[in-house]
Amino acid sequence: MKLQMIYAFLHGDISRIEKELEEAIEKENTSIISEASLQLLQAGGKRIRPVFVLLGAKFGDYDIENIKNVAMALELIHMASLVHDDVVDDSDVRRGQPTIKAKWDNRIAMYTGDYILGRSLELMTKIPNVEAHKVLSHAIVEVCLGEIEQIKDKYDLEQNVRTYFRRIKRKTALLIAVSCQLGAIAAGADKSIHERLYWFGYYVGMSFQITDDILDFTSSEKQLGKPAGSDLLQGNITLPMFYALEMPEMKEQVEKLFAGEHDRITAIIEDVKRSGSIEKATKVSDLYLDKALSVLDELPPSKAKNTYNRIAKFIGKRKF
Amino acid sequence: MKLQMIYAFLHGDISRIEKELEEAIEKENTSIISEASLQLLQAGGKRIRPVFVLLGAKFGDYDIENIKNVAMALELIHMASLVHDDVVDDSDVRRGQPTIKAKWDNRIAMYTGDYILGRSLELMTKIPNVEAHKVLSHAIVEVCLGEIEQIKDKYDLEQNVRTYFRRIKRKTALLIAVSCQLGAIAAGADKSIHERLYWFGYYVGMSFQITDDILDFTSSEKQLGKPAGSDLLQGNITLPMFYALEMPEMKEQVEKLFAGEHDRITAIIEDVKRSGSIEKATKVSDLYLDKALSVLDELPPSKAKNTYNRIAKFIGKRKF
Repeated sequence: MKLQMIYAFLHGDISRIEKELEEAIEKENTSIISEASLQLLQAGGKRIRPVFVLLGAKFGDYDIENIKNVAMALELIHMASLVHDDVVDDSDVRRGQPTIKAKWDNRIAMYTGDYILGRSLELMTKIPNVEAHKVLSHAIVEVCLGEIEQIKDKYDLEQNVRTYFRRIKRKTALLIAVSCQLGAIAAGADKSIHERLYWFGYYVGMSFQITDDILDFTSSEKQLGKPAGSDLLQGNITLPMFYALEMPEMKEQVEKLFAGEHDRITAIIEDVKRSGSIEKATKVSDLYLDKALSVLDELPPSKAKNTYNRIAKFIGKRKF
Repeated sequence: MKLQMIYAFLHGDISRIEKELEEAIEKENTSIISEASLQLLQAGGKRIRPVFVLLGAKFGDYDIENIKNVAMALELIHMASLVHDDVVDDSDVRRGQPTIKAKWDNRIAMYTGDYILGRSLELMTKIPNVEAHKVLSHAIVEVCLGEIEQIKDKYDLEQNVRTYFRRIKRKTALLIAVSCQLGAIAAGADKSIHERLYWFGYYVGMSFQITDDILDFTSSEKQLGKPAGSDLLQGNITLPMFYALEMPEMKEQVEKLFAGEHDRITAIIEDVKRSGSIEKATKVSDLYLDKALSVLDELPPSKAKNTYNRIAKFIGKRKF
C-alpha cells in the first residue's frame, strides 16, 4: 500500500501543484538559485504538507485556484527549512542526492533557502486573509527558534527529554498543524473546524517526527537515502537515544562517538535496538497518533476526514 | 549638520519604534538568537528605512499605531539581510562591532537572519492590506536574488557594469523604494502618490549605494567602522573599480590582490583615487540624486516632501 493511493482522489490537484511549484521556482531561470531549488524539488518528498492543506480546504469551500497557493507556500517553506538544515547539520546527502551545500556551498544554500521562502511568501499574498498570514508568520518564527534550539542542544547529553519534544514541535509538528489549519482557513471553514485541524496536524506531526527519529535507528541506508544513525552522528539526540541513555555505559559510548570515534555508530545502533528504547519511543508515537485520531473524531464525517485518518495511521506507523 | 536633525519632527515616533524593535526581538529572551539580534540592533545604523516609511505615511492618513509595524518590518528585513550578508562576505566586523558570524558562527548567523525575517513578517501581518504584502514579498525575493548574484559575481573581473547596477538595485535600492511606497500604501495614499514614492526611493537608493561604494575607497577605517577597501578585499567589484579597470595594469593588480596579495590594497586604493574613477562614480550618484528630486517635485508640497528632499541630498552627498 503506497501513501499516494490513500489520497488518489487528489491526484489531479497534486500534479498541478507539482507543476506550478516548478514554475514558481524557475521564474528566475538564469540563476544558480533556481537550479539548486529545482534539484531539491525534483528529488521528491512526500508532499505531505500540500496534501494536508488540500484536505483541510475540503472542510470549507474548496477552490483549487485559491488553495493551490497555500499548498505550494507550505511545501516551499518546508523546502527552505530543509536547505538551511543541511547547512546547520553539515549534511552532504538528502533524499539520496547531494545537498545544495555539498554541490555548491553554504552561502548558496543560505540564499537558496531565503529565495524559496520569499517565493513562498509571494504565493501566500494571493490569499486575501490576514488571519492566514498571522498563523503562517508565527509558524515561521517558531520554526527558526526550533532550529536554533537544535544547534544549541547538539552534542549535549545533559539535556532533558522535554527539550526534545519542544524541538520537534517547532521543527516539524507546527508546520504540519498549520498546513491543516491554513487549508481550512483559506477555504473559509469555521473556527471550530480549523482549530481542531490544527491540533490534529500537531499530533500527527509529533507522531510522524518520532517515527522518523526511530527509523534513523532501525532502517537501512538504502531505505533512508542517507546512512543509518545520521541523526546521532550529527549530534542530534532523538527520543530512542534519550531512553537508551538510561542504560549503563551508553553515555560513555556516545561521548566517544561525539569525540570523533565514528565507527562506534554500528555498535551503538545495535545497543539502542536491544535496549527496548525503540519500543518505548514507538509507544509515545502511537500515543500521539491516538490523540490525533481522537481530535479528528470530533469533526463531521466526510471523505477528507477519512483520508486524514488513513494518512495519519500510515505515516505514524510506517516502517521506512 | 547631522542627518537626525533633518527629521527632528519625527523624533518621538522614531524613538518609539527603536524601543518596540527591541521588544519584538527580545520576546524570546532565553535564546542566543535574541542576544545576537539585539547586539545588531543596538549597534545602531541610520534607521533610514523606518524614517522613509514614516515620511511615506505622511502622504496619507498618518497613524503611528498602524505605521510603526511597517517601519519596524522594513528595518528588520534590512537587518536580516545584513546578517546573511556577513556570512556570505565572511565579514568579522560591522559598525565597529564583531558580526554575529564572528562572535558565534555561520549557523547561528543564518538562523538569526531567518528569525529576524520571521519577526518582520509577524509585524507586517498587522497591516490588513494585501497589496502591501505583495509589494513586500516581491522585494524579499529580489533582495535574495541580488545576494545570489553578488556571490556569483564575486572576484569576476570580466563582468559588465550593468550587472553592478542590477545588483545594487536588488541589494539596496529596492528596499528603500519599497519603504517609501509601503508607508504611503499602509496610510491609504493614492496610487499616483505611492508609485512616485517608489521611484523616488529607488533613485535615492541607487545614489546612496554608489556613494557607499565610493566611501569604501575614500574614507578611513575609523570613519567606516571597517577597513577601507573592504569591498574589493571581499571580491565585490563596485562602480569606482569598474571605471578604474579601464586603466592599464589595474586588472593585473587586482588579480594579484584576489590571488591573496592583500597588502596591495593600499596601492590599489591610491591608484583608483588618482584615476578619476571616484569623480566618474560621483557623477552617476549625482545623476540618480537628480532623478530622485525630479520625481519628488511632482508631488504636492508638504513637510514630508521637504524632508525627503533634504534627506536625499544628505545621503547622496555625504562624505562619510
